[in-house]
Amino acid sequence: MTTFLEQEINSQPQIIAHLLDRETTRAQQIAAALPPFEHVLIAARGTSDHAAIYAKYAWASLAGYPVGLATPALYTLYHTPPRLRNTLIVGISQSGQSPDIVAVLEEGKRQGQPTLAITNDGSSPLAAAADHVIELHAGIERSVAATKTYTAQLTVMAMFAAALGHQPERQAELARLPDALAATLASLGQVPELAARYRTHEQCILIGRGFNFATALELALKLKELTYVMAVAYSSADFRHGPIATVGQGMPVIMIRPRGATFADLSELTTGLKERGAELLVISDEPRARQGADALLPIAGNLPEWLSPIAAIVPGQALALHLAAARGGDPDHPRGLNKVTLTR
Amino acid sequence: MTTFLEQEINSQPQIIAHLLDRETTRAQQIAAALPPFEHVLIAARGTSDHAAIYAKYAWASLAGYPVGLATPALYTLYHTPPRLRNTLIVGISQSGQSPDIVAVLEEGKRQGQPTLAITNDGSSPLAAAADHVIELHAGIERSVAATKTYTAQLTVMAMFAAALGHQPERQAELARLPDALAATLASLGQVPELAARYRTHEQCILIGRGFNFATALELALKLKELTYVMAVAYSSADFRHGPIATVGQGMPVIMIRPRGATFADLSELTTGLKERGAELLVISDEPRARQGADALLPIAGNLPEWLSPIAAIVPGQALALHLAAARGGDPDHPRGLNKVTLTR
Repeated sequence: MTTFLEQEINSQPQIIAHLLDRETTRAQQIAAALPPFEHVLIAARGTSDHAAIYAKYAWASLAGYPVGLATPALYTLYHTPPRLRNTLIVGISQSGQSPDIVAVLEEGKRQGQPTLAITNDGSSPLAAAADHVIELHAGIERSVAATKTYTAQLTVMAMFAAALGHQPERQAELARLPDALAATLASLGQVPELAARYRTHEQCILIGRGFNFATALELALKLKELTYVMAVAYSSADFRHGPIATVGQGMPVIMIRPRGATFADLSELTTGLKERGAELLVISDEPRARQGADALLPIAGNLPEWLSPIAAIVPGQALALHLAAARGGDPDHPRGLNKVTLTR
Repeated sequence: MTTFLEQEINSQPQIIAHLLDRETTRAQQIAAALPPFEHVLIAARGTSDHAAIYAKYAWASLAGYPVGLATPALYTLYHTPPRLRNTLIVGISQSGQSPDIVAVLEEGKRQGQPTLAITNDGSSPLAAAADHVIELHAGIERSVAATKTYTAQLTVMAMFAAALGHQPERQAELARLPDALAATLASLGQVPELAARYRTHEQCILIGRGFNFATALELALKLKELTYVMAVAYSSADFRHGPIATVGQGMPVIMIRPRGATFADLSELTTGLKERGAELLVISDEPRARQGADALLPIAGNLPEWLSPIAAIVPGQALALHLAAARGGDPDHPRGLNKVTLTR
């Protein structure tokens, strides 16, 4: 019998196909119905926050909007929310339950700003608080660690990037996602062997930049939740400003390095990491990424860089799953976690 | 002979007194001269980025401005900067040299937005790119790990919070900083003993929330740079959404828990951490914070919560210094780091 986690990882091509089918038109209608705005503020926690960080890149790159991340403590603990003007407020939450995320949307509404909820539960408090709702239609997520709802959230953020940017050719690219996810899942044969190799490490560094900074953050969280390894994610630029000092002989480093604008930027860092003795695993759709690396996990489907995060997380999800099993953990029930976390 | 790092940590009361003396009036003049704006975008890396995160709370709480953090890759790698409207662009950099931070200010200027540079070098490219410049007047920082320039950057962000919020009573509170820093430095006698206790740990978790989330991030970076320990910082809310799974028996956790709006929020977490077997060190100005903790490092000077981060980092700086020595490192020259980091 497989775990719920494995089933949910494998369900992602179908989930994303269903989501595109159900919500593409609605996302376009919402984008067209929104009043004019100049800024975007997103409130989210945990995995959902990584979808928000993806939107910082995608909504700026494709639609020109500056995206900021909300600091809910200003709303719930200090009771000094900022003045919100010409701002679209977006809340992202799988469960739609967390009071702090709901509080940011409610304050946005109180100040007369448009609000959008992205959630797996259309009857949740978050959905009730928003002018517009996009549901993930991912079905109940039984594993505590989010997988299918993360790629669904990324897909929704990508749908809005295309819709807000009025880019029909990007809509066509979105349609390639289900096949790309299926092809990526089909090419992960070496993951169990890699998991065995990494089994005894207690630390791991994740590096991405641009669109795939979100992938590094999300994979770090999956490793923490499922394997209890102290996994830390950095953008390659921030990494050079200090944390690179932590890399000594044998330190596992996983780099997300797809084709595109960040590929060259990560080349020099690859050399520096190997000089320090790092054990380097690269996740990429570019065969040249194997140069200087100890192993390569593929992203399949030939996606454009802006959509690559939706497939790039999949090898990482599989690695975290197998690593959890190799380290004797229960992938469906990590210690000390509940599916729904309520924070103020 | 002491290290440069120790000298620079100890110089902070004088540095901050000098800075307040030199730049308080200028900050008020700049605040008054700025054209109207609705949003703030800050570009920074490493330690400077933590001063930016402090401003997310301080500029909103005291002056009502929503603050976002720039993603320089949009400007330098993707060449798709967002549309910036009604936005003050701020660059923070000790050296003022990093091309990606300069690029964000230049793009802001190109789009007709007001720009402000905060740097230790008034003749740097960052200063040259900005409409307005505040210098830190911290003198040359000889240690690679930033200490006095960090508290100076925080102080500048606090000065602007008071000036932009037209809060004269906050200006008076700022004047208490030098004495509070001196009193905090004078109360760190147990740090060498704590450093000896933590000497063999290779991992550490830092927790803060609100104003002191920046303190958790900055202390994690100091520990990484100076002791090579895998130190990871979280807001207490994000921590509960997954990473708490990494806490097992004996895991060192350092919590920044001053008096104020976040104190109660961190109480429940304290219990949960002890149940998981964490070794809990608390940095606080509230004696009750010792309850449930294994040790307490004091913040002296009775500062209001919004200024507490400027003193709260000092016990952490001292801990990182002594831990570096206890682990056999060179506090002034961490492996693999340069003082000035140039990133695109």
